[in-house]
Amino acid sequence: MPDISKRGIRMPNSPIRKLVPLAEEAIRRGTTVYRLNIGQPDIPTSPNALESIRNMAAKVVDYGHSAGNESLRRKFARYYKTINIDLEYSDILITTGASEAITLTLLTCLNAGDEIIVPEPFYANYFSFAIASDVNVVPITSNIETGFALPPISEFEKLITPKTRAIIICNPNNPTGHVYSYEDLKQLRDLVLKHDLFFICDEVYRDLCYDGKTFASAMQITRLEKHLVLIDSVSKRYSATGLRVGVMASKNKALLQTALKFCQARLCPPNIGQLAAEAALDSPPEYLDMVYQEFLKRRNFIVKELNSMEGVYCPVPKGAFYVMVKLPVDDAEKFAMWMLQEFSYNDQTVMLAPGSGFYFNTNLGKQEVRVAYVLNIDDLKKAMECLRRGLMAYPGRQVGEKKIETIAGNR
Amino acid sequence: MPDISKRGIRMPNSPIRKLVPLAEEAIRRGTTVYRLNIGQPDIPTSPNALESIRNMAAKVVDYGHSAGNESLRRKFARYYKTINIDLEYSDILITTGASEAITLTLLTCLNAGDEIIVPEPFYANYFSFAIASDVNVVPITSNIETGFALPPISEFEKLITPKTRAIIICNPNNPTGHVYSYEDLKQLRDLVLKHDLFFICDEVYRDLCYDGKTFASAMQITRLEKHLVLIDSVSKRYSATGLRVGVMASKNKALLQTALKFCQARLCPPNIGQLAAEAALDSPPEYLDMVYQEFLKRRNFIVKELNSMEGVYCPVPKGAFYVMVKLPVDDAEKFAMWMLQEFSYNDQTVMLAPGSGFYFNTNLGKQEVRVAYVLNIDDLKKAMECLRRGLMAYPGRQVGEKKIETIAGNR
Repeated sequence: MPDISKRGIRMPNSPIRKLVPLAEEAIRRGTTVYRLNIGQPDIPTSPNALESIRNMAAKVVDYGHSAGNESLRRKFARYYKTINIDLEYSDILITTGASEAITLTLLTCLNAGDEIIVPEPFYANYFSFAIASDVNVVPITSNIETGFALPPISEFEKLITPKTRAIIICNPNNPTGHVYSYEDLKQLRDLVLKHDLFFICDEVYRDLCYDGKTFASAMQITRLEKHLVLIDSVSKRYSATGLRVGVMASKNKALLQTALKFCQARLCPPNIGQLAAEAALDSPPEYLDMVYQEFLKRRNFIVKELNSMEGVYCPVPKGAFYVMVKLPVDDAEKFAMWMLQEFSYNDQTVMLAPGSGFYFNTNLGKQEVRVAYVLNIDDLKKAMECLRRGLMAYPGRQVGEKKIETIAGNR
Repeated sequence: MPDISKRGIRMPNSPIRKLVPLAEEAIRRGTTVYRLNIGQPDIPTSPNALESIRNMAAKVVDYGHSAGNESLRRKFARYYKTINIDLEYSDILITTGASEAITLTLLTCLNAGDEIIVPEPFYANYFSFAIASDVNVVPITSNIETGFALPPISEFEKLITPKTRAIIICNPNNPTGHVYSYEDLKQLRDLVLKHDLFFICDEVYRDLCYDGKTFASAMQITRLEKHLVLIDSVSKRYSATGLRVGVMASKNKALLQTALKFCQARLCPPNIGQLAAEAALDSPPEYLDMVYQEFLKRRNFIVKELNSMEGVYCPVPKGAFYVMVKLPVDDAEKFAMWMLQEFSYNDQTVMLAPGSGFYFNTNLGKQEVRVAYVLNIDDLKKAMECLRRGLMAYPGRQVGEKKIETIAGNR
């Protein structure tokens, strides 16, 4: 039999999804599994989107334009103007989710073997997209002690080599919930211009900033026109992850024209998704406000609960709907598996995303998990109760001692 | 400004879509454009699919499973059994169209720099997917004179190097309409086993075989279990291209498990598309028969019309809904552009896909175009009348002389 490709072997299992088979087994045993592993909110999809799907008039579900349907691109441009982001429709490509937008950006901006600097913990799939595109991830570590603040620019400088071609950030951040400030972005802009790099900004959680933090888009920073690629999606904003509709936007025309060639090869983004996204962009402010208030309530609840558990440390996330939490366990992945395989409380358990998958050095996140507070308060209450009891019962529990030594686990 | 990537520069514009801006200009001038460039049938989407979309009950359009929804995978497996293809649901991954299935297959099976042998003219996007995956296309030329029959296996043998890892065919063929026989497939099987290669079979047009040709699936050939990847899609079968739902199937478990890791990174295929695809698979036989009869009628019409034009040569395609046609012109791409920019007849014109984009040596297809007979007979009549008159009026017309010399135009 012919060998599987090296990149295929190197490709990690998603930390967010790798435990799905264990969860499925637990469900078969009759256990309720609270899924805090994945950014799938239980919040209803924008009613405008749902209505547009049910009223679809087309007799032929045909190909759309490779760049995305012009009407949707124009509507995105109008939306961006309302939030002080100056983009024309021609600066915008519609993609099959933000996932495809990132892959297209890597393929367009980086050669095979080039390097991209990514603050870690990072959205795990950045690493996967980099492997698929033969791009090398160079991590720069942010720490739970600082709430995962942007590392000093001097630390970035140290990592820059002739192979460095881009920096990618997610703001507000998945998995940490950190919100980078306007000042942070300006510092990164100066670095990007100094070294003539691309700057990729994934801003799919922009609506969710808490505690008076105001969201700053990299698109609002001057002099980045040729360097910046904005990544966006309707998935989280309108609770419509299954539509698979995202955005890749840039003022750099050559960059966008090149990306369009990759888009042509895959023909078009999902067309019913585009129809629904167009309607979603007309969602009333009350919908977005409801979503915001709901996540704020959930965040407040979960932070308080987690920090009340002995040995658990949960920084206060200022944005998005995730938080990286330190647990008093020997190995958070073993713990997450144990919760699904061995543990239940009142026939219930919790599914978590092991932290190590969000780091390049997989030993760095060994005691951390990413918690997505995507369930309603009632479910979160039950989930937190399970977690509290699970942590007490777990055989690998480690409280108040034994600092885990960090050894290289680079991928 | 940082440079665009080399692969981005190397990526071709799609021959199928590159003339879209010219068509849009023509439409703005008030010209009706008959689009024979793209495989977008005007046939109504399966009513089952449309109904399922309009009846969608979900309140949350959420992520599906990365492998595709199990209910859809099981339904595909049942469908395959009805056509004598023995696949379990666990052998099947749902993809974002056949496009993604091919990209996933290349990433999973081939290393960067590996070679894939492709009979040319080939579906142009194979070349694009190869560039995106850093795989080298090695073309093996089939000829219009033989109706684009499979080249002799001895010719394949000559192309095999230590870098050769796979062969890909499309059967029935896009762009030629050729149908490879059971015997052809067995010969390819023997070659594949001898050299321990992967064999990728794109069978999205299997329902459309004419003139008593019976479709043979590579999945029906024994001893290919570890080597074969089947590519499929609902796009053409149910006239639902915009759903973006395809299939990657293999009996090779390691291969499929690896592909699943790439699937996890992009989260899931479009979920409403999956809903509609599941319903489409229940379409009544009458629907598929209607589609078949319609394409047969269109094929018969178009072949007769084309061959009645002076200097035009159109082989009789035995499958799919395309044909590669030789035109009496200096350069088929120039002609296609001229038809959109300079020509109209009764305010109508035709859009064609230049043949060169379907060859690795772009000079080979210089007088050819791909015609997709995807419009109803009335429109095809008008389109053929435009083409006939356009060919007569075209300044670069070449009839009965000057064989175009083929020079290297390798990409």
